[in-house]
Amino acid sequence: MTYDLVIKNGTIVTSEVTVQADVAIQGHRIAAIGEGLSGTREIEAEGKLVTPGAIDVHVHLQMPIGDFVSADSFFTGSRAAAFGGTTTFIDFVEAAPAEPLLDALAARQAKADKRVVIDYGLHMTITPTDIPKLAQLAAVYKAGCASFKLYMAYSHRLNDGELMQALEAIRDVGGLPVVHAENWDVISTLVARNLATKRTAPHFHSRSRPTLMEAEAAGRVIDLAMLVGTPLYIFHVSGAAVVERIADARRRGQPIYGETCPQYLFLTEDLYDRFGVEGALPICAPPLRTEADQIHLWEALAQNKLQVVSTDHCPFTKAEKARGIEENNFSRIPGGVPAIEGRFSMLYTYGVRLGRFSLNRWVDICCTTPARLFGLERKGNIAIGYDADLVIFDPDHKVKLSPSTLHEMAGWTPYEGLEITGWPAVTISRGDVLVENGKFYGEAGRGKFVARVKNS
Amino acid sequence: MTYDLVIKNGTIVTSEVTVQADVAIQGHRIAAIGEGLSGTREIEAEGKLVTPGAIDVHVHLQMPIGDFVSADSFFTGSRAAAFGGTTTFIDFVEAAPAEPLLDALAARQAKADKRVVIDYGLHMTITPTDIPKLAQLAAVYKAGCASFKLYMAYSHRLNDGELMQALEAIRDVGGLPVVHAENWDVISTLVARNLATKRTAPHFHSRSRPTLMEAEAAGRVIDLAMLVGTPLYIFHVSGAAVVERIADARRRGQPIYGETCPQYLFLTEDLYDRFGVEGALPICAPPLRTEADQIHLWEALAQNKLQVVSTDHCPFTKAEKARGIEENNFSRIPGGVPAIEGRFSMLYTYGVRLGRFSLNRWVDICCTTPARLFGLERKGNIAIGYDADLVIFDPDHKVKLSPSTLHEMAGWTPYEGLEITGWPAVTISRGDVLVENGKFYGEAGRGKFVARVKNS
Amino acid sequence: MTYDLVIKNGTIVTSEVTVQADVAIQGHRIAAIGEGLSGTREIEAEGKLVTPGAIDVHVHLQMPIGDFVSADSFFTGSRAAAFGGTTTFIDFVEAAPAEPLLDALAARQAKADKRVVIDYGLHMTITPTDIPKLAQLAAVYKAGCASFKLYMAYSHRLNDGELMQALEAIRDVGGLPVVHAENWDVISTLVARNLATKRTAPHFHSRSRPTLMEAEAAGRVIDLAMLVGTPLYIFHVSGAAVVERIADARRRGQPIYGETCPQYLFLTEDLYDRFGVEGALPICAPPLRTEADQIHLWEALAQNKLQVVSTDHCPFTKAEKARGIEENNFSRIPGGVPAIEGRFSMLYTYGVRLGRFSLNRWVDICCTTPARLFGLERKGNIAIGYDADLVIFDPDHKVKLSPSTLHEMAGWTPYEGLEITGWPAVTISRGDVLVENGKFYGEAGRGKFVARVKNS
Amino acid sequence: MTYDLVIKNGTIVTSEVTVQADVAIQGHRIAAIGEGLSGTREIEAEGKLVTPGAIDVHVHLQMPIGDFVSADSFFTGSRAAAFGGTTTFIDFVEAAPAEPLLDALAARQAKADKRVVIDYGLHMTITPTDIPKLAQLAAVYKAGCASFKLYMAYSHRLNDGELMQALEAIRDVGGLPVVHAENWDVISTLVARNLATKRTAPHFHSRSRPTLMEAEAAGRVIDLAMLVGTPLYIFHVSGAAVVERIADARRRGQPIYGETCPQYLFLTEDLYDRFGVEGALPICAPPLRTEADQIHLWEALAQNKLQVVSTDHCPFTKAEKARGIEENNFSRIPGGVPAIEGRFSMLYTYGVRLGRFSLNRWVDICCTTPARLFGLERKGNIAIGYDADLVIFDPDHKVKLSPSTLHEMAGWTPYEGLEITGWPAVTISRGDVLVENGKFYGEAGRGKFVARVKNS
Repeated sequence: MTYDLVIKNGTIVTSEVTVQADVAIQGHRIAAIGEGLSGTREIEAEGKLVTPGAIDVHVHLQMPIGDFVSADSFFTGSRAAAFGGTTTFIDFVEAAPAEPLLDALAARQAKADKRVVIDYGLHMTITPTDIPKLAQLAAVYKAGCASFKLYMAYSHRLNDGELMQALEAIRDVGGLPVVHAENWDVISTLVARNLATKRTAPHFHSRSRPTLMEAEAAGRVIDLAMLVGTPLYIFHVSGAAVVERIADARRRGQPIYGETCPQYLFLTEDLYDRFGVEGALPICAPPLRTEADQIHLWEALAQNKLQVVSTDHCPFTKAEKARGIEENNFSRIPGGVPAIEGRFSMLYTYGVRLGRFSLNRWVDICCTTPARLFGLERKGNIAIGYDADLVIFDPDHKVKLSPSTLHEMAGWTPYEGLEITGWPAVTISRGDVLVENGKFYGEAGRGKFVARVKNS
Repeated sequence: MTYDLVIKNGTIVTSEVTVQADVAIQGHRIAAIGEGLSGTREIEAEGKLVTPGAIDVHVHLQMPIGDFVSADSFFTGSRAAAFGGTTTFIDFVEAAPAEPLLDALAARQAKADKRVVIDYGLHMTITPTDIPKLAQLAAVYKAGCASFKLYMAYSHRLNDGELMQALEAIRDVGGLPVVHAENWDVISTLVARNLATKRTAPHFHSRSRPTLMEAEAAGRVIDLAMLVGTPLYIFHVSGAAVVERIADARRRGQPIYGETCPQYLFLTEDLYDRFGVEGALPICAPPLRTEADQIHLWEALAQNKLQVVSTDHCPFTKAEKARGIEENNFSRIPGGVPAIEGRFSMLYTYGVRLGRFSLNRWVDICCTTPARLFGLERKGNIAIGYDADLVIFDPDHKVKLSPSTLHEMAGWTPYEGLEITGWPAVTISRGDVLVENGKFYGEAGRGKFVARVKNS
Repeated sequence: MTYDLVIKNGTIVTSEVTVQADVAIQGHRIAAIGEGLSGTREIEAEGKLVTPGAIDVHVHLQMPIGDFVSADSFFTGSRAAAFGGTTTFIDFVEAAPAEPLLDALAARQAKADKRVVIDYGLHMTITPTDIPKLAQLAAVYKAGCASFKLYMAYSHRLNDGELMQALEAIRDVGGLPVVHAENWDVISTLVARNLATKRTAPHFHSRSRPTLMEAEAAGRVIDLAMLVGTPLYIFHVSGAAVVERIADARRRGQPIYGETCPQYLFLTEDLYDRFGVEGALPICAPPLRTEADQIHLWEALAQNKLQVVSTDHCPFTKAEKARGIEENNFSRIPGGVPAIEGRFSMLYTYGVRLGRFSLNRWVDICCTTPARLFGLERKGNIAIGYDADLVIFDPDHKVKLSPSTLHEMAGWTPYEGLEITGWPAVTISRGDVLVENGKFYGEAGRGKFVARVKNS
Repeated sequence: MTYDLVIKNGTIVTSEVTVQADVAIQGHRIAAIGEGLSGTREIEAEGKLVTPGAIDVHVHLQMPIGDFVSADSFFTGSRAAAFGGTTTFIDFVEAAPAEPLLDALAARQAKADKRVVIDYGLHMTITPTDIPKLAQLAAVYKAGCASFKLYMAYSHRLNDGELMQALEAIRDVGGLPVVHAENWDVISTLVARNLATKRTAPHFHSRSRPTLMEAEAAGRVIDLAMLVGTPLYIFHVSGAAVVERIADARRRGQPIYGETCPQYLFLTEDLYDRFGVEGALPICAPPLRTEADQIHLWEALAQNKLQVVSTDHCPFTKAEKARGIEENNFSRIPGGVPAIEGRFSMLYTYGVRLGRFSLNRWVDICCTTPARLFGLERKGNIAIGYDADLVIFDPDHKVKLSPSTLHEMAGWTPYEGLEITGWPAVTISRGDVLVENGKFYGEAGRGKFVARVKNS
């Protein structure tokens, strides 16, 4: 049989196996893995790694937040993702108070569908005004939205009674709850106190959001998940104390999962002390923590105390970030940092090459486990019948990160100057070569919404 | 030297020592312990135990709660306490929204002072309307009120930000926070759901207040205490899951203390299934739990996972209790049960005599540790200079508990028919013989408010 | 490309993936996995599972033990294994006191090579007389023997100083120590005491070998492994207390692995109370334990507290087993039970079908993890370049275990009457169909010794 | 009543209470504690602490060890103890192989009785040759020897089977086992290896006895104690890993107790690197450890992970210590250091004054808990009926430790130059003033053997 496309002689890396062989693609799918396969088109990959396309389960593209909209559109953001080897992302949808949930989903899909260059899914955010709409969750789940975002912080947070109700409803339809865990009552008290005493600089952003209060909130929602009987996925774990709440639950046998993000692995809160807008740029929530937390997070990934690295990509421009500096109010700085393009290579360079974890664990963290937890049935692995989302990764390619080497639109990056060894040479999405040797061949709207199913 | 009063030849039991000797009282104080002491008056105590007067740190006398007032007045309640060997109690004071805290304290003292027959202290409750008054805490502490009640449940609960502020203020004056820990958002959601579906019987009282949500709240306030850097005392621990949160914190070295009450040691939630008002009588919060929890609580006392047994004495009459039955609404039943008289003897009979813990541990739990934690400097021990608050305890005296053998005013007791072996023969308060062989010699108003100091 | 042999349309089950596809074999290896593959020979597998050949890392074939030799020869034992879906086993070699280690290895290989029908490896046992020969380990490792058996029990046990030396030497060559952990001083004291007081029945076999003393020995060798800095694999974990020592070490991050065996998962110590030789048959060491231990072991497999199920297959005939009964001495009963044929199907039936763990975990426990831990580089998985050791497993085939349905030679089985659903239809070893529909097509001597390498 | 002797106006410190009062002594006993007591003799103690006499439960006086005898006789050692505020010590007796245990006890008592100036008890060491004599333990216990020493190290160590038998026998008579826990097989292997490679300096003493192997042995005997069902007391805990094995057992509820000694609290293994005999002087077993271990031990005392500080006082002269240096063999240096005189004051200065623990905890560690654990019914507390063993302690008296300020006979001290603030002004034993203001008033032979009873 002659396949449509065969990647020849690469070193296939999955979460479990490292093996040299050909990968054959027929249509959109992986059709065979083996020796001596032939294709209409063949790409030579000797000396390169062949991995599943990376999956980023936590992304905010063209997200309205107050007066601003996050700087990457569905087009620019998904294109940057493709350059970095990411072939699927999961973004968010949130209904207006009176809006039916399916309408909100359709509207957000409509916005994304014509712009995305890779496949995507959506988490649906459940806010207090959605509690009366929980009966609509079955339809939402059936429409392919299998995970639900619950905030324990900000004005649209759920109180614990609402959290319980949301967790029950999500459990009943077979979905996965994903949670922003911070203790908002404490944070808002500390923010108010700091502002009232003229402690307005970015320095006080992390001082107003103690790691222990992130751990407390994680512990609380883990208790609620135990009460209700549901698995749970905790977003953007930033420090050691939070990791250990998750690890304790897992030791007890609770199905609790945690992710961290590049900002917590590569940056520390010292950055908030930089002068002027520089101190404002790395504002995100939860905030950056200490170097000791950083070390703990890397170890947690190796020890499977945490399961996933996503980006929480949510870029704003320097001008937007400057607002809180000009207003002398750290709480007015829009929160979020970019990472959608660099994540896969950053983890290879500083995870695999530094010996913190293996090649297979890298693929597990970035591709396989995210796919499995979020019900992307045909993504995240190199196996027969899976979508032909693949990266031909050059382990020796060197890149120095900067706005000029990246394709993100924030105009700055917190990783400016970071030396990377290892970068995608080719990114393939459902059999289409999207990026090859730094050139982009995709087009807006070719990506598809992926209907997801119960996590296993 | 000839002392005013000498108790001759008793077996002195303190939290540490069991020894046969005389105890001499001069004025209000213990003046000597030893052999061959002589007194103007002498009481023979051979074959009896001589213990410190018991201390009950959790009592609600003539407490207004909605339409009702708890059934024991400062006089009848403190007299019943004296009959049972308790010589000091700590009740509560709560300021009205606009009322200065010292005014509230003075008013509550004025109400108590003319009625109490034994010494007493007051915990001050801090409600949301008191947050702006936290600067008054130093004066309150100086006035002898060294502990502060914080609710995580009911309408006067504090949110977590307020809790943090209250804990900081209490820490700054050297006080001890005491907490009612339950997750109110979850409870009120469950109560509403149960009532909405006609699950209105007392059975659903405990189903609406899961042990895990009491444990969650305990864990949360323990986290806040860690954040703030303060010791903490958790009221009325009702089940195993709560015990273990406290025990975990203590293993980490946090100064966290826990109490339980007779209702959790002697009763179980099965009682809520009794017919009619009988099922309503044992309504209290946290609710009664399972037999497994009961076993765990007894062991926790032996292992010092819990430190104190108080009563949370808060009696209502059968007529009052019947309201929620008549209204088909378990949440309208006034909560609370009586125990102020029986506690010391109940723990002797079912703790010491059944071999669950030692004589010394009994005294520790009921007398010494409560005194130490709550700053009753001269109470809770038999040592020179301490107040002459003493019990001559007859270890063989048998009593069957019932409204007719007790002096409490609820008109019923949840321990009806419980067989007790061991009862106070004489109760002495600051050198005065208050009760002797079932006869009461005290008078209303002889008890005094005790100014308390920082716990050690 | 047309391959030598293609298994068509089966459901491929690896430790990570379940997918329907063809598997192509070229020569001895898996050459491709995919859709539409064609072969010179094709076997239809629709409705069947295609798994890696199972691996049994703990087997005693024609092992001399005192006056007896275990009942299965390298031929009958390996043939029974093949019937049950096992395509690789690891047996043992032990040098005589004066014998060079390589000579012993060569002699044992010579004995096996002409009889085995599937591939095999050897653990080398290190006894006290081998301590002076530890410098020979590098050569032994180079010869393909990558794991070393250390006894903490029996006359050839190592004391703790010798254990440390052996662990150091094994660490230095990159090998994996495998340990029989029991406290022999305590056991021999208890055996002597029981025999001296006429407690001679099999009942006293398990009473003389307390679970706690197996846990102690496991904990001790875990401490030694920490001191030395080596991974460690603990054989035949029989009870909950032992599991938890391993789990504790793993939580600390130590690379400790544990196996259990069918006897501990399916049988309990009550069997020792059967009359006559029936009570002697299930004698093995460590002994059978309680039902509570059994439950704990199943859960430990699901939770990855234990990693492997092997058999410790070591059969003796009823006549041999009867000796200790006739001599009134439980310690004279030769220890060991058979399971080499049934293991894979027993775990499918009572593990997967009862919902205790997933299909993938079953393959992980029986195939993938054993291969990985023991350096069988090309075994235990279905991936390109791996040996074509495969099982076509009929999930609906029913078997009732008994000597007449099994091919083991003990003449009895402890699992007599056990109902099995799921049995191998075809067993393939390095591309050769060895068993097909109950008929054996292999021949003595076709199996090969597999040189193993450092575990990863 | 006029008592024989009254200590006036001192601050009485017990393990539980700090109170100002008089202490009256009648004959040998404490007869009263109180205000206004009068005595035939009165000693003014205003501004001083009045504590129970200190108890040292681990002492080796005139102990034969190979060619040497420890440098302090029963007279000089007990006199030095009295100078330091210690009024009771427990030494050791060991029977010769053929000697009945009671004979050995009588012989050791005869040697001590005529020399001791304070009261004493004896632990009986059980060696392998005593295993056949275990039936004699009841008589030994009845003769007042209530604790039994078991070695896991040295030539007279017990193997685990013998340990189990000894623990059972001790349990049956109600005694307390006290254990030297180190893994001797590992230690002797490491010692031999070090000597064989010319690593002969004292530096290699601690390298040959890893903390982890002390922890292992402690863990092992804790397992045996669990198997047998007996409490256990672990001698001379030297490092953090050992502490945590004890703490783990205590958390599980096992009655396990641990002591440490001044050498582990004040010295570190760096001392072994001093030149010549200076490096040999602090040789003791277990060896000195690291500064991190030291910090952990101080915290363990504060947290009640350890319960007692004894001395393991076992002095040798510089000439004796020099042997192993001259012979180039660290293992030939006689092990042991002196501390019998300084312990109580050292712990006051560096424990209480530095804020590591309270006054009451100091008395608990040095007096009350040792008395309670070792069955010294009338020692270790200030309470009516207790022996009048008392110290009037001057909290401001400054001493610089050196052979000239101490009364020990080794001729050197490892604490040379240590600045002490707080020293006994008066030491009273059973009502006799033994030391007053640096002058000794006792005489050889006035001390008595104390028959001890079951620990509570």
